[in-house]
Amino acid sequence: MRIGFLGGTGIEGKGLALRFAQAGAEVIIGSRSKERAETAATQYNNDLGNAVIQGMGNLEMIASSEIVFLTVPSNQAVAAIDSCRDALSTGPVVVDVTVPIEFREGKPVYIEQDAGSNAELLASRLPAGAHLVVAFKTIPAHILAEIETPLQCDVFVCSDSKEAKDKVMQAARLIPTLRPLDAGPLQSARILERMTFLAIQLNRRYQVKGARFRIEGL
Amino acid sequence: MRIGFLGGTGIEGKGLALRFAQAGAEVIIGSRSKERAETAATQYNNDLGNAVIQGMGNLEMIASSEIVFLTVPSNQAVAAIDSCRDALSTGPVVVDVTVPIEFREGKPVYIEQDAGSNAELLASRLPAGAHLVVAFKTIPAHILAEIETPLQCDVFVCSDSKEAKDKVMQAARLIPTLRPLDAGPLQSARILERMTFLAIQLNRRYQVKGARFRIEGL
Repeated sequence: MRIGFLGGTGIEGKGLALRFAQAGAEVIIGSRSKERAETAATQYNNDLGNAVIQGMGNLEMIASSEIVFLTVPSNQAVAAIDSCRDALSTGPVVVDVTVPIEFREGKPVYIEQDAGSNAELLASRLPAGAHLVVAFKTIPAHILAEIETPLQCDVFVCSDSKEAKDKVMQAARLIPTLRPLDAGPLQSARILERMTFLAIQLNRRYQVKGARFRIEGL
Repeated sequence: MRIGFLGGTGIEGKGLALRFAQAGAEVIIGSRSKERAETAATQYNNDLGNAVIQGMGNLEMIASSEIVFLTVPSNQAVAAIDSCRDALSTGPVVVDVTVPIEFREGKPVYIEQDAGSNAELLASRLPAGAHLVVAFKTIPAHILAEIETPLQCDVFVCSDSKEAKDKVMQAARLIPTLRPLDAGPLQSARILERMTFLAIQLNRRYQVKGARFRIEGL
């Protein structure tokens, strides 16, 4: 499975890229600058001890990927989509991992979205033919990047396209100790984005860094 | 610890009453009808095999309890509070376990609240002197009532009163395999009520009955 990262040079892109590469997927880091993408890919390959991740410009990455993770900061996601509209209209599955949370004076603030969730806002900006799937919103980026740490949690996956959702759940299943759960339609992002806000607050209150969710009884 | 139930004859009240009684708390079932409360208490004592739960009229129950669980259906909670305003102003900790979810043609529907959450609506209706704490919203009532089933999950507790929150967390700690987590201010109910909606949807999608949350990494 070929998995690309739009804005793959940040911490969220790094963590997911390492996990998927470790699990045997073909991983492509995308960046506006091909050179930056290649530099990141080289660093990640060093972390893995295995030269399996490639770096490309964003448009080339999209053309080469079945699944494209949107791993830019939440408030840059619309601009990232707009800059790649034509490439995205060729039909890759686009995965949104962003959460509308800002830090103000060191404190996390949940930003209410007119669309209901950041995911629904992004969906409204995607070209026809692209399908948006929400996943990994509730899993802390730096826990993903600690590739020796077993995740031991659930990844909630939601979308209005069953086919696209199945594809992302299949990809998530590659990663050990991670269980993908079908969280329903895209609108469930309203719940998942808020759950991330709870997890961040728990991290701060209990002075940990990796609070994440598991469902018991399933 | 003396724990009362306002509207304790339904499934949510039953499950919590059984769990707390099993854990050694003094449990009082309240109902508008003292007779109905006593009948329920007798049934619950039979389930426990131990005559430790009492039944009382709601006002007597409130006067006798340190913590009062509001275990009426979500859309009857305001009326229940209004009917006991004077008694509640004497200062027991009131615990809201309700979620604004209705079933329409068999499907769960999350009812958006102008106040942000059902908990915030209820808080605005309580008399001065009463402190509202949110807890147990995300734990399925019938799993609570299956007293042989280990809960093995977290209970998220939030409130604007630290003292009241601590008291409810202390009570929750009595129940084995249940971990109370400080989920912050009352406003966190906006997250917790939606999480319950996700859990109900997971129950339906995966044909289980007891989907509930645990935090990993804490």
